[in-house]
Amino acid sequence: MDKISHILLNRSTIRKYSPQPVESDLLTELLEMASRASTTGNMQVYSIIITRDAEKKKELSPLHFNQKMITEAPVVLTFCADFNRFNKWCLLRKAEPGYDNFLSFMTASIDALLAAQTFCIAAEAKGLGICYLGTTTYMAHKIIDVLRLPKGVVPVTTVTVGWPSEKPDQVDRLPLEAIIHHETYSDYNDEMIARYYREKEERSDSVQFIKENNKETLAQVFTDVRYKKGDNVYFSNMLLEVLKQQGFMNQ
Amino acid sequence: MDKISHILLNRSTIRKYSPQPVESDLLTELLEMASRASTTGNMQVYSIIITRDAEKKKELSPLHFNQKMITEAPVVLTFCADFNRFNKWCLLRKAEPGYDNFLSFMTASIDALLAAQTFCIAAEAKGLGICYLGTTTYMAHKIIDVLRLPKGVVPVTTVTVGWPSEKPDQVDRLPLEAIIHHETYSDYNDEMIARYYREKEERSDSVQFIKENNKETLAQVFTDVRYKKGDNVYFSNMLLEVLKQQGFMNQ
Repeated sequence: MDKISHILLNRSTIRKYSPQPVESDLLTELLEMASRASTTGNMQVYSIIITRDAEKKKELSPLHFNQKMITEAPVVLTFCADFNRFNKWCLLRKAEPGYDNFLSFMTASIDALLAAQTFCIAAEAKGLGICYLGTTTYMAHKIIDVLRLPKGVVPVTTVTVGWPSEKPDQVDRLPLEAIIHHETYSDYNDEMIARYYREKEERSDSVQFIKENNKETLAQVFTDVRYKKGDNVYFSNMLLEVLKQQGFMNQ
Repeated sequence: MDKISHILLNRSTIRKYSPQPVESDLLTELLEMASRASTTGNMQVYSIIITRDAEKKKELSPLHFNQKMITEAPVVLTFCADFNRFNKWCLLRKAEPGYDNFLSFMTASIDALLAAQTFCIAAEAKGLGICYLGTTTYMAHKIIDVLRLPKGVVPVTTVTVGWPSEKPDQVDRLPLEAIIHHETYSDYNDEMIARYYREKEERSDSVQFIKENNKETLAQVFTDVRYKKGDNVYFSNMLLEVLKQQGFMNQ
């Protein structure tokens, strides 16, 4: 098997990092690769905030629910949807930007995420470990303050980066047939759902999760403990408020 | 330079494909790699619709503004935010899903986009060429009909895939310093904007664009021709309507 296939198929998220620093030159090289990712109309409507400073990491930490990767990783990257820079260019060049709307937010988010994933694959190819933090969209309103993001800029995801000090087992994935559809979407019946989720449900760590949380099924661990409706609704409203405040909801 | 760095740094979007088919086994191998991409809480809340059928491509073509890659590429992949499968699992397992909100849409979109970009890098490493189509978020309402996407599923991006029959020059990118920030966002002044966009403005194809479109500046080609406010507002409203219809706006 070629090296790239091997890396992509055998990767794991890394949450524990060695104290060894990530050199500036290496980080720059990886960011250069990220900047070659596809981008809508070659507008590059995203920015990457690099956090190395220990004080800044401490400020960010509670906004990521104190997940220890934030303070323990040598480098934290916040990938942002960013129309601010492009808008400023338009205004300087006698052009009237029309990017203060939801479609433009999605365009900029897509740009940011393609760059983020390119960075992560480039980093893993060099032997670094990465972890995505989904908390960014929950706490965007506070991350904006800490990173001083102006109007037109919204944080979309955060990645911690460092040299691995763990070698975790690979976690499960659904069988490929569960996530692909040919020509049109073939909706799932109960038998298919049961079959596709069986491996996940039967894993010893899943059984442990159910027991620890006093639940009857693994799905209940997700709905009642990990990703609760109340939290989702609360953070949805916050995020929609952020989009308004940052100037992306002027329809 | 190692092979992965070389591929990531020297890639170009490919819009012209040879008639040579993309073998099923190869496509499956690439999709397996994509399925190892990071995903929120290992929920894998995305689906990939594979279009190979010529009739289906014809149906999709106008929804992508008749960009010829849709009908000419052997494979078209539509990456979708998908909570439908996960919701069905919850309901089958006596759990009450709370994922009918905007935060969950963003979570699922992030999953879909990380899988999409992993697929693209894996494909390019095998010598295939890819092109992203930004039109997916514009025309989501019609793509949903053609691909028969149920509630809980929204198309986020589309990728065309095939063996290259062109070797385009690499397009420009902003200097790296223009898209990164250290510790906090350092906002741009006019001098910085002029410096960062100079290369793009001075390219011969940019000069040609300005002339062809009877504009004074390159920025005006973007605001007045390519990405117009009126279109953005119109498609923003359509996309927000899609989110409601597909069950992602129940705050």
